[in-house]
Amino acid sequence: MWGGRFAEGPSAIMREINASIPFDKALWRHDIAASKAHVAMLAAQGIVTGEDADTISRGLDAVAAEYAAEGVPEDWDLEDIHMTTESRLAELIGPAAGRLHTARSRNDQVATDFRLWVRETIDQADAGLAALQRALVTRAGEHAGSVMPGFTHLQTAQPVTLGHHLMAYYEMIRRDRSRFADARARLNECPLGSAALAGTGFPIDRQATCEALGFDRPTANSLDAVSDRDFAIDYLQAAAQCALHLSRLAEEMILWASQPFGFIRMPDTLSTGSSIMPQKKNPDAAELVRGHAGRIVGCLTALMVTMKGLPLAYSKDMQDDKPPVFEAAGLLALSIAAMTGMVADSTFDTARMRAAAEMGFATATDLADWLVREADIPFREAHHITGAAVKLAEERGVALDKLSLDELQAIDPRIGEGVYAALSVDASVAARASYGGTAPDQVRQRVDEAHKALGMER
Amino acid sequence: MWGGRFAEGPSAIMREINASIPFDKALWRHDIAASKAHVAMLAAQGIVTGEDADTISRGLDAVAAEYAAEGVPEDWDLEDIHMTTESRLAELIGPAAGRLHTARSRNDQVATDFRLWVRETIDQADAGLAALQRALVTRAGEHAGSVMPGFTHLQTAQPVTLGHHLMAYYEMIRRDRSRFADARARLNECPLGSAALAGTGFPIDRQATCEALGFDRPTANSLDAVSDRDFAIDYLQAAAQCALHLSRLAEEMILWASQPFGFIRMPDTLSTGSSIMPQKKNPDAAELVRGHAGRIVGCLTALMVTMKGLPLAYSKDMQDDKPPVFEAAGLLALSIAAMTGMVADSTFDTARMRAAAEMGFATATDLADWLVREADIPFREAHHITGAAVKLAEERGVALDKLSLDELQAIDPRIGEGVYAALSVDASVAARASYGGTAPDQVRQRVDEAHKALGMER
Amino acid sequence: MWGGRFAEGPSAIMREINASIPFDKALWRHDIAASKAHVAMLAAQGIVTGEDADTISRGLDAVAAEYAAEGVPEDWDLEDIHMTTESRLAELIGPAAGRLHTARSRNDQVATDFRLWVRETIDQADAGLAALQRALVTRAGEHAGSVMPGFTHLQTAQPVTLGHHLMAYYEMIRRDRSRFADARARLNECPLGSAALAGTGFPIDRQATCEALGFDRPTANSLDAVSDRDFAIDYLQAAAQCALHLSRLAEEMILWASQPFGFIRMPDTLSTGSSIMPQKKNPDAAELVRGHAGRIVGCLTALMVTMKGLPLAYSKDMQDDKPPVFEAAGLLALSIAAMTGMVADSTFDTARMRAAAEMGFATATDLADWLVREADIPFREAHHITGAAVKLAEERGVALDKLSLDELQAIDPRIGEGVYAALSVDASVAARASYGGTAPDQVRQRVDEAHKALGMER
Amino acid sequence: MWGGRFAEGPSAIMREINASIPFDKALWRHDIAASKAHVAMLAAQGIVTGEDADTISRGLDAVAAEYAAEGVPEDWDLEDIHMTTESRLAELIGPAAGRLHTARSRNDQVATDFRLWVRETIDQADAGLAALQRALVTRAGEHAGSVMPGFTHLQTAQPVTLGHHLMAYYEMIRRDRSRFADARARLNECPLGSAALAGTGFPIDRQATCEALGFDRPTANSLDAVSDRDFAIDYLQAAAQCALHLSRLAEEMILWASQPFGFIRMPDTLSTGSSIMPQKKNPDAAELVRGHAGRIVGCLTALMVTMKGLPLAYSKDMQDDKPPVFEAAGLLALSIAAMTGMVADSTFDTARMRAAAEMGFATATDLADWLVREADIPFREAHHITGAAVKLAEERGVALDKLSLDELQAIDPRIGEGVYAALSVDASVAARASYGGTAPDQVRQRVDEAHKALGMER
Repeated sequence: MWGGRFAEGPSAIMREINASIPFDKALWRHDIAASKAHVAMLAAQGIVTGEDADTISRGLDAVAAEYAAEGVPEDWDLEDIHMTTESRLAELIGPAAGRLHTARSRNDQVATDFRLWVRETIDQADAGLAALQRALVTRAGEHAGSVMPGFTHLQTAQPVTLGHHLMAYYEMIRRDRSRFADARARLNECPLGSAALAGTGFPIDRQATCEALGFDRPTANSLDAVSDRDFAIDYLQAAAQCALHLSRLAEEMILWASQPFGFIRMPDTLSTGSSIMPQKKNPDAAELVRGHAGRIVGCLTALMVTMKGLPLAYSKDMQDDKPPVFEAAGLLALSIAAMTGMVADSTFDTARMRAAAEMGFATATDLADWLVREADIPFREAHHITGAAVKLAEERGVALDKLSLDELQAIDPRIGEGVYAALSVDASVAARASYGGTAPDQVRQRVDEAHKALGMER
Repeated sequence: MWGGRFAEGPSAIMREINASIPFDKALWRHDIAASKAHVAMLAAQGIVTGEDADTISRGLDAVAAEYAAEGVPEDWDLEDIHMTTESRLAELIGPAAGRLHTARSRNDQVATDFRLWVRETIDQADAGLAALQRALVTRAGEHAGSVMPGFTHLQTAQPVTLGHHLMAYYEMIRRDRSRFADARARLNECPLGSAALAGTGFPIDRQATCEALGFDRPTANSLDAVSDRDFAIDYLQAAAQCALHLSRLAEEMILWASQPFGFIRMPDTLSTGSSIMPQKKNPDAAELVRGHAGRIVGCLTALMVTMKGLPLAYSKDMQDDKPPVFEAAGLLALSIAAMTGMVADSTFDTARMRAAAEMGFATATDLADWLVREADIPFREAHHITGAAVKLAEERGVALDKLSLDELQAIDPRIGEGVYAALSVDASVAARASYGGTAPDQVRQRVDEAHKALGMER
Repeated sequence: MWGGRFAEGPSAIMREINASIPFDKALWRHDIAASKAHVAMLAAQGIVTGEDADTISRGLDAVAAEYAAEGVPEDWDLEDIHMTTESRLAELIGPAAGRLHTARSRNDQVATDFRLWVRETIDQADAGLAALQRALVTRAGEHAGSVMPGFTHLQTAQPVTLGHHLMAYYEMIRRDRSRFADARARLNECPLGSAALAGTGFPIDRQATCEALGFDRPTANSLDAVSDRDFAIDYLQAAAQCALHLSRLAEEMILWASQPFGFIRMPDTLSTGSSIMPQKKNPDAAELVRGHAGRIVGCLTALMVTMKGLPLAYSKDMQDDKPPVFEAAGLLALSIAAMTGMVADSTFDTARMRAAAEMGFATATDLADWLVREADIPFREAHHITGAAVKLAEERGVALDKLSLDELQAIDPRIGEGVYAALSVDASVAARASYGGTAPDQVRQRVDEAHKALGMER
Repeated sequence: MWGGRFAEGPSAIMREINASIPFDKALWRHDIAASKAHVAMLAAQGIVTGEDADTISRGLDAVAAEYAAEGVPEDWDLEDIHMTTESRLAELIGPAAGRLHTARSRNDQVATDFRLWVRETIDQADAGLAALQRALVTRAGEHAGSVMPGFTHLQTAQPVTLGHHLMAYYEMIRRDRSRFADARARLNECPLGSAALAGTGFPIDRQATCEALGFDRPTANSLDAVSDRDFAIDYLQAAAQCALHLSRLAEEMILWASQPFGFIRMPDTLSTGSSIMPQKKNPDAAELVRGHAGRIVGCLTALMVTMKGLPLAYSKDMQDDKPPVFEAAGLLALSIAAMTGMVADSTFDTARMRAAAEMGFATATDLADWLVREADIPFREAHHITGAAVKLAEERGVALDKLSLDELQAIDPRIGEGVYAALSVDASVAARASYGGTAPDQVRQRVDEAHKALGMER
């Protein structure tokens, strides 16, 4: 296919390192679609005859039917999905097949195919993330009032509600979806017609192929169009951030499922046992999600390193764009689905969560705030008084609200009876009713808004 | 400042590893601004008196004036910019300073400050990139018709115009700006009032501080607000892609400045000599830009790894968010400025570029296209015929258009006299007039559109 | 310093992007040492006179004394530590200073200086890691018999001893030290005398400078010697693995210090409190160590990306080798010291650890093993029988050894009275006496061997 | 296989995310070997009967024969290679198969298998690299005296010899081999017998399995042994550095094959053509090698991120260790083989290389050195004089040695007739005879030493 200038064919090692068909066959649907759009345009512009175009288009349908039925054959000599398809087309329809490649090159062809694939993958990720959000919102609604310890530095900090905690992940996923949407919008320009690098002398209609393939506009510079893999990196960057979010949720579920925490019981359907320890029930799915974050970050790194310092236009290094994207997409889809199942089907031990919240002097800040509010003490001083109360309670081995009023007043006489109302975990969470705070009412409002945003029935 | 529970102070190693003031002092303007917005809101809500608020606000101005004049002092015992400022405030205005920290925590404070810093940095990057675009467009306008070899695989492929080549980078930078704009929009939510993790019981007005600081809306979940560093990763991801684009331009300039290419003469102002080789003029600025891409990718990696698997809410690991962002921002700003200078001030040796375009059989595709267009030969067959012509020309050591008509017709009798008009580099570029192609007219249209988009006078 | 070919000096942006003196001044001691070795060799070879060499050498001592007293001045016009020193030398001793640069170039000079710096840093890391090992071994010796739950998947798996757990980190650090030792051995070749890239025509004695600077041999290829940064990447790779190990220990300490675990009380000297929550005692040092792992991985990534695809010989991109190495070295040194303090000074709550080990059916495997050993049942069947016993105990809400013999025999009649001896946590750990197992005797043997390996007194 | 505690089986998503058999089947030979060593030891220790051991061992041979003939079946329900093999074994030999898993766990089993796999891969990499070194040495020997321009900053710097240039890569590969050797030595400890995490109560003989499998010693701590993936990261780090070296060689070959350089003609067997540009001959193999460096760096990043912050002992995240290692190993093996072919079979255009070396004032340093040596001028002053000569030659458009003696003496009267002997490229390279320098004699000595080191016949 390279014309007659090569005295020798490729060596065995060349055939192997060069062949992309083992992975780029994943693009076959997009390659067929783009070829059909291209040939229809060629006919409309009079560059090929209507008859040839029909023959080619029907031939492409036949090739597609074969692929759907039997898979795409992997012949390394045909290098890639483009030559594999064109070669089969030629077998089916004869020399007219040779007219399909008019006014295009594999460089703009693969850029178009791959954009179509990434666009579709973004749409699937978005759908998966919406499902995860629905699971989060549903469980958050159930647990808007369930008290648990809020941690900072993994130390008990202040009581929060489980619903509030779950809605934190709703927010992260909201940002992930917005990131994928941005990537999709930026991606949605059509490179087809950029040819090898310089555009073409044939009177093509780029707007036509662009519209046929659902793109917003044709790319504006042919050199850029064949050299650009921003869209793939955009996807991987969005995927990496999403995977990092999922790794945080996974980490928390692993912690919560541990015996010392005991906040959660994972579904049997997403756990495994041990080949040697019969009592084990392991949070494998969560661990794999956490591990996959590493691999997805690795995929992003791979493509960034590969693209660094490449001169224009197309270089073969860019063939290494697809494996990391395909790998990340598969891992991310599994991760999203697994976390959705874990959120939806885990059982929360709310009694144990509440008990944990009642330990660790989690309402110390409420005492300090009470001193500011009721006794008009500057916060820094109130913080110090509270520190002394915590120290006493710790020495005595009791909770803060089990200190007597005498004991508290011995620390600071401005402390009054009313303070006890502030020291329960329920009072603590109810008090934090600032916008976005952990108060059950706040959580319910956020859940309601999320229902609307997601189009969920109540 | 931690209250009275600690029997021992921090060890020397703890003071050193814990102190962020050596780097987070860069946030001082944003910290002061956020504190002023916070105290004004506290007064408006009646949480502190107007008198206290005025004292605090004036005190903050005084601290700011000191910082502006003398720099921010680095006392490791005060840990960070927040405590440094509050401590100095207390020295200046006394106990009223203690009221400033009501209804907030360092967790929401640093999240707010850092967002303000990143937002400002994004705006600076955008301005720098606009300047780079203007330089590209100006030089592209000058060289819309200057012919050079277009490369794929760094092999001479087809003639292109230098203006077209430069406009490819205009497109990349356009995407970079859109990426920064997306990051800015997603960042622009105000975490202030999320307090330590759970919100606050004080009757604060988050909308007020949000507006005062130029944010679009308050964050909707306090746990997320203090645990989230997406905005920093968004920035680093946009910076990394931008740096990769600049590394490609840098690579090309380094190639072009080499003796074998000789396409460009870099400005003395952005080159260096050698301490040992007196004849050298080195493209150091371009090399440093290319090298900086590595470091910026490293900064992104750093923060992604750091955030992986962190449970909610704030963990101290997140203190490691700032050094990579500060480093990347500094490197990127220098890189953008250096490339702007190189684009604006380099001298292109257009004669040498044209000569290079005329070598390497760059118009072979034009011969093939002519055969398709004029002789109605399927492209694949035309490609093969052309291969034979190239082989002959190569054996004869001449350019394609120096083969005689007899020689060409011996290869294929359908080749006619008219073909010679297609084989000059000027004809070749002029022919590629498809939208986004390299034809000088196309380039001039793109340059005109870019002028409008950038608000440039002609 | 570049000779007379430049019409214009560098622009402001060039001066800033080009200057390495802000960071490479860290090399000043190594630069002075290498210059002294070089000039002594030049004199010995008769390339400069003994008198000139003495003048230069004394001048270098004078410059060094100034640096030690007042720091290294940062003049961007002098670019780097090499020109800064040579320029000051010329001020002090006059034109003889110009003879120092005979038969060398900044390219081999910086390669030599930086190797010396990295070698020293490796030696410091090794010393720090030895101290950490001593802390681990000391605590392991104290707790060779302290029972705690061993986790897999963060689920209670089998009882282990705390001493055994700590000795796992001893092993990791042992590998880290071996990795640094390998890096040091590979690094220890002297590039000095490679000149700019091609070697030199002066009759230098590379063996002499090599020995004077403590290198094992001179580098064998001058082009490689000035283009190579393997030694810096070797260092960063060893540092990254070490940081990953420390991040795992940090993660465990953070978990153990959490209220639900409560296995450990961190020293006040390595913890912090909260500006808002008076009860908090946060494991900041451990969190920062965990966070630093991200940054150190980022430093490694940075240099790998920077070096990718660079043609020989020296390119200015390689100036970006030092900031990541300097940053990683600082972070790693702090991390090692902080973890050493945490291991040495944390208080283990062994009662709570033991109690946790007694929950979660941690001795289920011991039941299965008993069935294999005493009743000759294939392991897979024994595993199944034990699963049924765990299920019953879980339903009854009791530990395995609280099931009656009748209950156990109802599950499988082959279970006998002797099984109870196998089901205590002490019996369980004592039983695992295979080499490298968790049995206290095994741990004590390993601790003894470690004492010897580290040269520790008992 | 998890005993009887699970009410529900895994969901579809769990089966998919959990199954490692699609990739860990690559370990089958190592899994069989380790199982055979294990059961032989169990019999020798009397833990299983000799009869059972024979049955199991023959059964394992039968399974292996099936795998060799038909491949390893992928049944997700059997999760991994270990259960797949044991399950098939049970089908073949009945309940005795259940005795194989005595005194081991999948945790130590996979750690053993994977070490065996990595060790084998290291040995293959070493063999491949030795072949690449032989190719480099052979070509270097042919071209010990072929002059080419040496570049720094990709600017012509000084003449070097092609042999010298190729031997720089010999040195890099030498370091790569030493890095792989270090990794192998550190890897070569046997985890088998560490069981799930704590060792075992069975009287196993770890030394016996260790020796049977070719390891140097058993691992010393069972918790570490099942939690450790240093050996995989060591491999990936060595692979990444090697890939970076290959990316540099690839970059140079791509440059040299470009029309402006024209230093090299790549073999047809390792090049491709274009589907649209009939004249193209693209250095695809070199580009893919350069691109693969990005992916290999990504694989390393992936595993480092995955391992960060994992608590002991085994976590399922660690199942994500194999795909990056397998991917990197495949890419590296192809890259090494492709570069070996390119080095061995490329044609160097030495005339063009020499012509390029004669341009660009590459011998300017030789003029400066002559002034130091013959006229006793300090180097810095000589550098300045030479700068003036270069400037004049550049203005006159001639080479340095084409300036007349009058012209040179007008610049500095100390310049004498003898200088011309120093200004030819042959004189220049011959002069640089310092150890490791570019002089043909030096290169030949290095080539001779390399022949010996590699055991090559001359």
